[in-house]
Amino acid sequence: MTIQTNTTRADDSPIRLVVHGGAGTITRSKLTKELEQAYTQVLAQSLTAGHAVLEAGGSSIDAVIAAIVVMEDSPLFNAGKGAVFSNAGRIELDASIMEGSTRMAGSVAAVTTIRNPIRAANAVMTKSAHVMLMGQGADAFAAEMGLEIVDPSYFYTQFRWNQLQKAIAEERLMQDHDVVPDTPQPQMDKKRGTVGAVALDRHGNLAAGTSTGGVTNKRFGRVGDSPVIGAGTYADNHSVAVSATGTGEIFIRTVAAFNTAAQVRLQHIPIIEAADNTLAEIAALGGDGGLIVLDAKGNYAMRFNTRGMYRGTIGSDGIVQVGMFAADDRAVSTSNSHDTR
Amino acid sequence: MTIQTNTTRADDSPIRLVVHGGAGTITRSKLTKELEQAYTQVLAQSLTAGHAVLEAGGSSIDAVIAAIVVMEDSPLFNAGKGAVFSNAGRIELDASIMEGSTRMAGSVAAVTTIRNPIRAANAVMTKSAHVMLMGQGADAFAAEMGLEIVDPSYFYTQFRWNQLQKAIAEERLMQDHDVVPDTPQPQMDKKRGTVGAVALDRHGNLAAGTSTGGVTNKRFGRVGDSPVIGAGTYADNHSVAVSATGTGEIFIRTVAAFNTAAQVRLQHIPIIEAADNTLAEIAALGGDGGLIVLDAKGNYAMRFNTRGMYRGTIGSDGIVQVGMFAADDRAVSTSNSHDTR
Repeated sequence: MTIQTNTTRADDSPIRLVVHGGAGTITRSKLTKELEQAYTQVLAQSLTAGHAVLEAGGSSIDAVIAAIVVMEDSPLFNAGKGAVFSNAGRIELDASIMEGSTRMAGSVAAVTTIRNPIRAANAVMTKSAHVMLMGQGADAFAAEMGLEIVDPSYFYTQFRWNQLQKAIAEERLMQDHDVVPDTPQPQMDKKRGTVGAVALDRHGNLAAGTSTGGVTNKRFGRVGDSPVIGAGTYADNHSVAVSATGTGEIFIRTVAAFNTAAQVRLQHIPIIEAADNTLAEIAALGGDGGLIVLDAKGNYAMRFNTRGMYRGTIGSDGIVQVGMFAADDRAVSTSNSHDTR
Repeated sequence: MTIQTNTTRADDSPIRLVVHGGAGTITRSKLTKELEQAYTQVLAQSLTAGHAVLEAGGSSIDAVIAAIVVMEDSPLFNAGKGAVFSNAGRIELDASIMEGSTRMAGSVAAVTTIRNPIRAANAVMTKSAHVMLMGQGADAFAAEMGLEIVDPSYFYTQFRWNQLQKAIAEERLMQDHDVVPDTPQPQMDKKRGTVGAVALDRHGNLAAGTSTGGVTNKRFGRVGDSPVIGAGTYADNHSVAVSATGTGEIFIRTVAAFNTAAQVRLQHIPIIEAADNTLAEIAALGGDGGLIVLDAKGNYAMRFNTRGMYRGTIGSDGIVQVGMFAADDRAVSTSNSHDTR
């Protein structure tokens, strides 16, 4: 297995944010220049929004929420607006969040009316006795907590609707978003638009969050890894914060996020190696995807075993770095957070 | 924190089954002799049923299912018939199962019409492309797979209904089953009737399964640890099979089952120590409960940091061992599996 790209470094800056927007067959030849620019712009906005929180002394949790909300609100990603349709023509959203200092966590699965599911996950964490709420109950809880409720049609996009019709026609499960409408073997050419963020704040606290619409044409109330603490999301100040994206079932079976954290905590191995070990386990079971990992010293990794992963990072220097393709080992945009926020 | 009881041993017998029926304030003074006998009998039946599968050369998965079905069918445990009521007066059942050789897994959450949720979890594992299904979708899937469907009233018991009325009256969450109707501080005196099993078959394969009704008076589609792979259930031939019971939210946050397995796999520490480390983490976050753990050599542990845990084990000698209280370090019944099956 080839683990493609990416970066880690000891960073003496006290704050750090890393985001992903899904991993898959993301290659330069498959993205139009316009789409590439659009993804770059939203990833930069997400990083800038989270960085503003950290820069102002805010918590890593609030930075993770700020970063993810930008991607949920963008139709480009399979989270919030622009999420994929289930077999029944519904959009069911999952999200989870975890705080590294207390290991408090919150999660929602299959919600349909909450504009920003990551905020609902945060409300579960901070305002309920529970960790994981699902379905109508979770929607009702979010409404009681005063979160913004929208009509399910808010999430709809024509592109995702067409994807569903195509998937139904092809009578099979299609994962997340394909930017190329007429791929010969779309199941081999899948992209996933799950979004996630990990952050380190000035107080030395880590946080992680993940948000998704799951897989196109999903049936039977399928739950993927994103709302599962340990699989899609995990954070512990004593090890790392992790957000995952990929073939959800296999990320659940390998307990991908905690698996990575456990290697760091119990074996003290570098975070790149830990992430790659987890991705190797995932590949051995037939899965693929990516992981973003951040420790309390500011070391970070953005690893994937797919053709590409929408990703980016920003530290205390405020320089926005965005990448998509395997070759973008350190694609640095010229944006500066102070200019763009 | 006092970790109370229990046993582990290297066992040269090629088969082993360990079951639990929940951990909590289970003391001799709180159980009538009749109830104690009833629990002993059902635990012995569960062990005998699973042992029969293993003895005949069956798989650890089939043994786990056979053992759990007996407890699901008994009104004594908070799983299947006799499960607790949600705030809405419904019974919503969760279950999960995992196979150690392939690390295949299946899980259902908040199902309401499947007589034996552990069979539904197995169907998800073996007959779907998914790992976790929830709600009506999961019920529909089980029906399509030909599993036994029952009217929701099948699960009802007067005792659990009374528990709900009491919990609603007291306007707070009450966990699982109290055998003492008038405990002054029931929230401090909680019992949990989640059931689980771990098995090792003649082929050296491990399996784990867990089934529950969650907590009395639960709201908002609360999901506990039992259907979460990594938290309530985990199995890997290279480490251990684990089934957990306790304060579900904290078992999710500590990723209890995989946490225990990771210590064994990455640090090669004895399974008792691994289980105790996990229970200490859980206690540090304010939780309690128990874990059953089994490795591919037949070493097993039944650990808990509550007053008691319904539990038992059987190996190739066919001797049924059942315990409930902390003092029952090795309560051995006189039943022999060959006599009782």
